[in-house]
Amino acid sequence: MVTARVTVTLKQGVLDPQGKAIESGLAGLGFDGVASVRQGKVFDIEIDAKDRGAAEARLNEMCEKLLANTVIEDYAVEVV
Amino acid sequence: MVTARVTVTLKQGVLDPQGKAIESGLAGLGFDGVASVRQGKVFDIEIDAKDRGAAEARLNEMCEKLLANTVIEDYAVEVV
Repeated sequence: MVTARVTVTLKQGVLDPQGKAIESGLAGLGFDGVASVRQGKVFDIEIDAKDRGAAEARLNEMCEKLLANTVIEDYAVEVV
Repeated sequence: MVTARVTVTLKQGVLDPQGKAIESGLAGLGFDGVASVRQGKVFDIEIDAKDRGAAEARLNEMCEKLLANTVIEDYAVEVV
């Protein structure tokens, strides 16, 4: 069993209204000096695979097909 | 300017229907051998701080007050 973390983040230049809302929320709570907040997703996945390489290949395929929208998002696969 | 990544994940034992839906989605696409998917959030934050320690302290406070629901979520702050 291989454990992996997949992180999906918006590409640079893509608007992130959720991040902007969090920025305002933080300012409203008195946290000043926050220049930017960008929100993304993280998936902790346990997968049956014969080795790390096989797991990584499969996880990359999962990102391309389901986990990320590659038009606007980048993804990173990290096998733990 | 300090750049940090805050990762917020559900505590063990807390139900994750979104993760379960992704599991089913992956199975439906023919990805077998996926034992578990847990979804979390990631925040990439740029913050004005005099040093890493000050930034970390402030980010931990932000997690406690806004970014994480500490009843059901864990958080990790990583200054890049």
